[in-house]
Amino acid sequence: MAPHPVSVVGGGIIGLSIAWECARRGHDVTVYDPDPGRGASHVAAGMLAPVGESYFGERELTELLLECARRWPAYAAELAAATGHDLGHRTEGTLQVGLTADDLAELRRLWTYQRELGADVLALDGDGLREREPLLNPRARGVLVASDHQVDPRRVVAALRELVPVRREAVRSLSGLDGTVVLAAGCASATLAGLPVRPVQGAVLRLRGQAVPRHVIRGYADGRPVYLVPRRDGEVLVGATVEERADGHATAGGVRDLLRAATDLVPELAEHALAEVSVGQRPGTADNGPIVGRLGPDLLVATGHYRHGVLAAPYTAQAVADLIDGRPLPLLWEPFTPQRPTAGGAR
Amino acid sequence: MAPHPVSVVGGGIIGLSIAWECARRGHDVTVYDPDPGRGASHVAAGMLAPVGESYFGERELTELLLECARRWPAYAAELAAATGHDLGHRTEGTLQVGLTADDLAELRRLWTYQRELGADVLALDGDGLREREPLLNPRARGVLVASDHQVDPRRVVAALRELVPVRREAVRSLSGLDGTVVLAAGCASATLAGLPVRPVQGAVLRLRGQAVPRHVIRGYADGRPVYLVPRRDGEVLVGATVEERADGHATAGGVRDLLRAATDLVPELAEHALAEVSVGQRPGTADNGPIVGRLGPDLLVATGHYRHGVLAAPYTAQAVADLIDGRPLPLLWEPFTPQRPTAGGAR
Repeated sequence: MAPHPVSVVGGGIIGLSIAWECARRGHDVTVYDPDPGRGASHVAAGMLAPVGESYFGERELTELLLECARRWPAYAAELAAATGHDLGHRTEGTLQVGLTADDLAELRRLWTYQRELGADVLALDGDGLREREPLLNPRARGVLVASDHQVDPRRVVAALRELVPVRREAVRSLSGLDGTVVLAAGCASATLAGLPVRPVQGAVLRLRGQAVPRHVIRGYADGRPVYLVPRRDGEVLVGATVEERADGHATAGGVRDLLRAATDLVPELAEHALAEVSVGQRPGTADNGPIVGRLGPDLLVATGHYRHGVLAAPYTAQAVADLIDGRPLPLLWEPFTPQRPTAGGAR
Repeated sequence: MAPHPVSVVGGGIIGLSIAWECARRGHDVTVYDPDPGRGASHVAAGMLAPVGESYFGERELTELLLECARRWPAYAAELAAATGHDLGHRTEGTLQVGLTADDLAELRRLWTYQRELGADVLALDGDGLREREPLLNPRARGVLVASDHQVDPRRVVAALRELVPVRREAVRSLSGLDGTVVLAAGCASATLAGLPVRPVQGAVLRLRGQAVPRHVIRGYADGRPVYLVPRRDGEVLVGATVEERADGHATAGGVRDLLRAATDLVPELAEHALAEVSVGQRPGTADNGPIVGRLGPDLLVATGHYRHGVLAAPYTAQAVADLIDGRPLPLLWEPFTPQRPTAGGAR
């Protein structure tokens, strides 16, 4: 297919990934965003965790996310090579842990389900867990999911921004943009195209200190869900609240519960500096799946990635670029078109 | 005494109050501070609480602070009249409360001591407490100290800044400044004059929401000390950690404990937005008392106010201005000169 103009509305990790993929295929692409990379991508922890994010009743989504995760190592290598950036891609794996008998009962149900999906869920005894992660509360029990990795979304955004042109303009209407338009505006996609995407607010804390875990750690601390994502530079992300509001504020109760859970799982974090409290709006959908596909002859959409935007960005970019090139949507994406009933139905 | 030049080093609430008092007495005063009002004054909650801040073994300090508090109503009225500013001076009083039997055992010892000091500590039964402050946890028990009030330190600083000239310069040496020099630089007084003042770091949270208590509330929630200071504009301050460090960071454990205690005492605060986490360095001294007096023929000092800077500012200003005018230090200040052994001894 001949190169032609592509306008991407939204400069988060989804829009920027699409733009880079289009540019790599020779298209003339422009991204529109008044403040690129400062939406949900700026808050996201960057867990590449299809196993940890697999939930009962979301089998098609899990299959998609597992394939998304398989693409990340090559994608990270290509992006790092193209820019020289360190993307914080880490493959130590994820510990799924709990503290109380109730926590572990809940986790065991998840581990059974994750194993049914074919995930490599490695049981560890207490000594094995402590050996891998000495900072864990000695009462913690859990498993290692070696295939659940992490990347630093802020670094990914910074790298992608070097590779694609961004016009720092707010798009108020999708008409009047050049060539094929790709709507990748997260929660703003609701107003721009009437899509059923709603903001699901989340607060993430960034701690800084000496004692930093080696693995991503997620699970429950006395019933409070939490994940800890350690960066190599001494930062530890603590996430995340899930709140049906969009006022941009972290709540006192939400921050309290994250800090309690984090310091219950890794007590030394209590001495860390609370360096940042950030709040983002995840673009949520009725079935928690993304909305990717065609809305019109020259209008495509890639939004609604909810908790999975970072994980799904590379494969989303490939799927959208395939559509632009006149190819069919990859099969795993078929359940997630805007034509499905939970995404508003056929147009 | 004839008007003469006065140079005040430090533009926090202490330095600005001294400068205004000197200006009112006709002296030609200049304040030096690169960032006036942005030190401990910017973080302070502004409790005017000599009863709540009275501790065993600090009898002379308590006597001084009780007199400091008596001066605030007239001072606030004069400052408001001079500037037209609302200073957030509120006189609803302070509830001292606890949740557990241990909390109340600790508080009862304090209340006995406070009554010995002559304080009006009004016992309330559970219904009486809930009637006065319906937002309190129904398990809370406590007393009303009607004489412990509050003011908004940021508003006081803003008002004082309209009344005195500030040169936004950092003073590196006390020599070369005009006329009588008053050192009121908080923790920086240690390096400028070798005074035994150490930073005692404190984090204060600012919450915003609909349900706001009427009274200042302080006490213990399952052993965690906390105070809540409600402003008329919907802000609720939650303070404060007391940490022997000076890195400028709130710790994860400190913020966690403040949020737990605050939401334990007033459960509805859990829904409030966490609007600000600020950290300040209180100028602490060996005996927790301020250091006010003469260091040399043309050098006075007013520092080391620790947790009491806002409360003590008006009376400190009077004491320092009296010295400048050749009068003796008011009697209640005599135990707090730089010549006392715990402040480094005679010079």
